[in-house]
Amino acid sequence: MNTSGKVFLVGAGPGDPELLTLKAAKVLRSAEVVLHDELVSAEILRLIPSTADLVNVGKRSGKPSPRQADINQLLVQYALLGFRVVRLKGGDPFVFGRGGEEMESLRQAGIEVEIVPGVTAALGAAAAVQVPLTHRELSSTLILVTGSSKQSDHIANWPDRLPSNATVVVYMPGDLALLQSRLLSSGVSPATPCAIISEATTESEETHITSVSDLADSPTLAAPKLLVIGEVVRLADPRQLHRRFSDFRFSQELAEVRSSNTSNPLESAE
Amino acid sequence: MNTSGKVFLVGAGPGDPELLTLKAAKVLRSAEVVLHDELVSAEILRLIPSTADLVNVGKRSGKPSPRQADINQLLVQYALLGFRVVRLKGGDPFVFGRGGEEMESLRQAGIEVEIVPGVTAALGAAAAVQVPLTHRELSSTLILVTGSSKQSDHIANWPDRLPSNATVVVYMPGDLALLQSRLLSSGVSPATPCAIISEATTESEETHITSVSDLADSPTLAAPKLLVIGEVVRLADPRQLHRRFSDFRFSQELAEVRSSNTSNPLESAE
Repeated sequence: MNTSGKVFLVGAGPGDPELLTLKAAKVLRSAEVVLHDELVSAEILRLIPSTADLVNVGKRSGKPSPRQADINQLLVQYALLGFRVVRLKGGDPFVFGRGGEEMESLRQAGIEVEIVPGVTAALGAAAAVQVPLTHRELSSTLILVTGSSKQSDHIANWPDRLPSNATVVVYMPGDLALLQSRLLSSGVSPATPCAIISEATTESEETHITSVSDLADSPTLAAPKLLVIGEVVRLADPRQLHRRFSDFRFSQELAEVRSSNTSNPLESAE
Repeated sequence: MNTSGKVFLVGAGPGDPELLTLKAAKVLRSAEVVLHDELVSAEILRLIPSTADLVNVGKRSGKPSPRQADINQLLVQYALLGFRVVRLKGGDPFVFGRGGEEMESLRQAGIEVEIVPGVTAALGAAAAVQVPLTHRELSSTLILVTGSSKQSDHIANWPDRLPSNATVVVYMPGDLALLQSRLLSSGVSPATPCAIISEATTESEETHITSVSDLADSPTLAAPKLLVIGEVVRLADPRQLHRRFSDFRFSQELAEVRSSNTSNPLESAE
């Protein structure tokens, strides 16, 4: 135990333990207390010294979730006791991870905080399914939002209007029928392809490719899930997807989309 | 040399060599040829075996840039020769990295491609300056775009309208006066705070905090740079920023912003 504690808010990446950063691995190896989410894999938890206290503060579905205020308070208490504390979160701590709230609590208590960024779920999922999130011809804007949530205190403020030529990634998409109507009312074309990616970068990864018009009829895949919406989904690895979806044919339609895009602002504007 | 080549498109992270993933480090250690950007640090390049060919295909300012088509062709040629090739890019290969174009070229040539995601620059910069990119009270949408570029074939398709309660990160912000007028015409309030972060997560990191109304008068910081725009910038680490900016006072205004936000859709909508 040190005389003054410190808290590291650490991103554990999208799931694959190899997608942890070198820095996150180093910080974990020297941790005295680790508070972790349910999303963090057992292989990553194995890096933590056996002498460290390991506290699961995950929000497990179907069980009462620990309140964020209680997690904040626990971090403060451990740090005041002088421990080197790691708050280990799936993905990146500052992208839909409530890391900001934890940081504020710790600052208010006068505790030193360091943020170790991580590969956020959208990047892990895109790499796994081989969907480039931006692309000179197809998408020049990447928008990350959250879907609806059962927790009433955590509702996404959905943008009124989604720009064309954007890729949208919805974290925790929730109710797909609701999402579909939100996408349509935000100006997204019903023909826009989308991919639901479940447990990305893990051995249980599953992908369902569909379009906004058929989104509500998608099968229910296991959490954690992401929804990627945009023309770039047409570039998803066809070999990988044909294994499960014999009707996958977005790549063939790509030439058509591109030729219809030749007058878009990407090509002509300065 | 293997009988069949393979290309790994690998994200090197935002700058700090410790922000490389374990997987990227592993892939680099077994590389036979590495084509890398200017953005990749010398410390990361040191992981590459001395027997590997190292090719700098970086787009250095002031010098003629290698054409993307030539880089694509080089990747294909090395892979056809049977090499294990790594294309190492700053940040993440699928976020403004042209990884999608390289992947398409390789697929067309029948070459196996694997994507290793990385910590994109926005996440590295946010962690370094302690600005949470999303926040329940302040920002529920994260938008990544690029600024203007000197390369005429790489122009950002700026969204017509930026949603309120969003954090916008501009990669390669370019001309700040142009950006300021774009932000204002997209509906962003002139009082919105913003941060220019130069060489994030490296020893040369510099940060300038300002507002959209004063953006055009910012000092010129060294590339690579990012611009973060949004109310979350008020949460930037004041101790860190006071070192350089004695007039930094956004954190004091935060309470006011929050109280004015109590009627926003984040709080009331279902």
